[in-house]
Amino acid sequence: MQHLYQYVDGDRLREDITQTAKFGSVPVEDGNCRTVLTGTEANKRAREYFVKKLDERGLDVSIDAVGNIAGRWVPENADPTARSVATGSHLDSVVDGGQFDGVLGVYAGLEAIRAIQDASLSPDLPLEVVAFTEEEGGRFSDGVLGSSVAIGASNVADALATTDDTGVTLGEALEEIDFKGEERLDATAWDSWLELHVEQGTRLEETSVSAGIVTHITGTIRCHIDILGEADHAGTTSMESRVDALTAASELALEIESVTNEIVETHSETAVGTVGQFDVEPGSINVIPGSVHLGIDIRDIEYESMERIVSSIRRCLARLEDERAVETTFSRPYDIDPISMSDRCIATLHSAATQAGINTIELHSGAGHDTMHIAKVTDAGLVFAPSEGGYSHSAAEWTDWSDCTTSTRLLAGALYDLATE
Amino acid sequence: MQHLYQYVDGDRLREDITQTAKFGSVPVEDGNCRTVLTGTEANKRAREYFVKKLDERGLDVSIDAVGNIAGRWVPENADPTARSVATGSHLDSVVDGGQFDGVLGVYAGLEAIRAIQDASLSPDLPLEVVAFTEEEGGRFSDGVLGSSVAIGASNVADALATTDDTGVTLGEALEEIDFKGEERLDATAWDSWLELHVEQGTRLEETSVSAGIVTHITGTIRCHIDILGEADHAGTTSMESRVDALTAASELALEIESVTNEIVETHSETAVGTVGQFDVEPGSINVIPGSVHLGIDIRDIEYESMERIVSSIRRCLARLEDERAVETTFSRPYDIDPISMSDRCIATLHSAATQAGINTIELHSGAGHDTMHIAKVTDAGLVFAPSEGGYSHSAAEWTDWSDCTTSTRLLAGALYDLATE
Repeated sequence: MQHLYQYVDGDRLREDITQTAKFGSVPVEDGNCRTVLTGTEANKRAREYFVKKLDERGLDVSIDAVGNIAGRWVPENADPTARSVATGSHLDSVVDGGQFDGVLGVYAGLEAIRAIQDASLSPDLPLEVVAFTEEEGGRFSDGVLGSSVAIGASNVADALATTDDTGVTLGEALEEIDFKGEERLDATAWDSWLELHVEQGTRLEETSVSAGIVTHITGTIRCHIDILGEADHAGTTSMESRVDALTAASELALEIESVTNEIVETHSETAVGTVGQFDVEPGSINVIPGSVHLGIDIRDIEYESMERIVSSIRRCLARLEDERAVETTFSRPYDIDPISMSDRCIATLHSAATQAGINTIELHSGAGHDTMHIAKVTDAGLVFAPSEGGYSHSAAEWTDWSDCTTSTRLLAGALYDLATE
Repeated sequence: MQHLYQYVDGDRLREDITQTAKFGSVPVEDGNCRTVLTGTEANKRAREYFVKKLDERGLDVSIDAVGNIAGRWVPENADPTARSVATGSHLDSVVDGGQFDGVLGVYAGLEAIRAIQDASLSPDLPLEVVAFTEEEGGRFSDGVLGSSVAIGASNVADALATTDDTGVTLGEALEEIDFKGEERLDATAWDSWLELHVEQGTRLEETSVSAGIVTHITGTIRCHIDILGEADHAGTTSMESRVDALTAASELALEIESVTNEIVETHSETAVGTVGQFDVEPGSINVIPGSVHLGIDIRDIEYESMERIVSSIRRCLARLEDERAVETTFSRPYDIDPISMSDRCIATLHSAATQAGINTIELHSGAGHDTMHIAKVTDAGLVFAPSEGGYSHSAAEWTDWSDCTTSTRLLAGALYDLATE
């Protein structure tokens, strides 16, 4: 089946991505972004375009209760009741997001099926391409909502009752755009799953390869911390008598950076720790900060090193209470285990890469993806395409069209192999 | 004139302060604040009440072009063309401010004149009590606007053209409340000036005295700094490849604290350095901060130690650029010299305190006040009344009524002495 790779049509894939980029397009100084929040007009148009493309290739389209879209193709020789090999990603974006994040994976999946069809190949298992609802969490959730429902981790009623900032429910928003279907897409019924996604990092660019085979997706722990000092007059409060929440919070930020760097050097080079939120009150130039709220994001492929960072945060808070007389609060509302991709999928991807003559590297994913959920219920693999400069979630997000084509070839070969006994 | 002190009527003073607290009153969880921005209805009512109280005692009321209100009393034996001994403060407040800040000084000044009248004393010089416009800078300026005009540091036309956030000019706002008068109150024509103000610190409370005699008002330097890193995905950007603006800014905040503490210990115990503004962009939990804007406030009674802090900031920025690959910007738009109170006023206050049997301490002011301007053109003195817990600009602002009375007695005695040759 060497010739399958020739049927992967980069122009057709590019057409789908650039057409999709028009929905929710936001012109910005240095190019175009897209804002495609779940249940908006832009999301409706992106979904309709996808359904049209599925129809064109005779795929059996289903929309589930939370708006997950699946197109299923039963090859001529396949048993229609057999478990599918599935692929896909998502069509929603963050506010001012890029054109490849999610969209590449959806249309690479469809292009893989089109190529298998055009090559007149007939794998033994049905193939399915999926667009999950609300992966980004831009409107209704913390993200990966559709795949969470598809594995049964969230139930349909809870998901539909989730509200946006204005009180609109996901159910209402999906009805509004006519994409609230029936039943539940069931990922546990899949034989296996592969997702192609942009790397959103620079390791592929640095090693000049067109595709990366992901071995692990990092876990994520998020902590929310309040540091409470005393808001006071910056001029009349002596250095000795002030309880400055900002300088205490600054110590914590530097401690997190320092302990994470130490873990990277000595234990796990994939660990990252970030203080992304840092809200200072009252925030006036002549008032000593009375409080700082910190939002902290910790990731690694080893749960233990994430726990080390959390422990160091708690020790630092105790020390700050002791040395600086601040009060502190700590919560940890978000805790996701690292997960490994299946050996079978990794091996299949390596084999397909060899057959197609595509250079790859193995790497981990620092970002969560729908695959993070799917890997809990079936054999799952994740492929990365290079991100120019590592940029994502902005107008600067870019993947060379030739890399899109090459990584889609890898996806097509591996999907065919998984579906062929 | 020992008996003058008996004529200072604490109940009358309290009545004026509590009545004024009703204008712009804002109920909050733990009491009441007042929001009295220049040119608002609340400001109009506070001004009208003051004018009524000046009228009741036969003072000659004038409103100048920027809304400064003065009430002038020419004692029976005084030359009406002689230079006045002036006193006063301001009636405007910050948003959610307290009831003593400014108001105590205005009504203590009036009460001092009422007491001198009631004691049937007739000093040699006219006495004047003033409420300056826009001391707090809550709506139209960086503050101390009225006194800046009164010493000729700002001209009337420029002051009137100053706009609030919505584009309304000070001139329009004053006309709206019918307090745009004529000409310019001229502080250079005063023989001398005394202001009573709440301390907004805890030194009087700590030493259990009812009044403090201010020797210096600190200077203030404000710096604005941007630290520019690279906003990146918190999960996919390795520790090594990130340029985190927040951790760089945290180092700067700690450096400012550390160098100021060192100056306090070794050179000047009155030095303070504060990072009050610290705005992090984009401020999302999963994005490495791309920029931080810092607003820094530096004060001391010695200009040299303020300059030392600024130098250490500049060295720290150079080091951060070098070690962390951030870019930085630096500006210094606000630079006010420290100023000393006049020896004559300080001596008169000490003498009055001794006569009245009032215990005092000498201290410096870390906050700017209208007196900061007036001291440039005539002999000026500043008296502090204790602030409970040091709180100010909030509902927690409080000065015991007995301390209000005692500090007003000191003011009355010193004003009388200054006006009596």
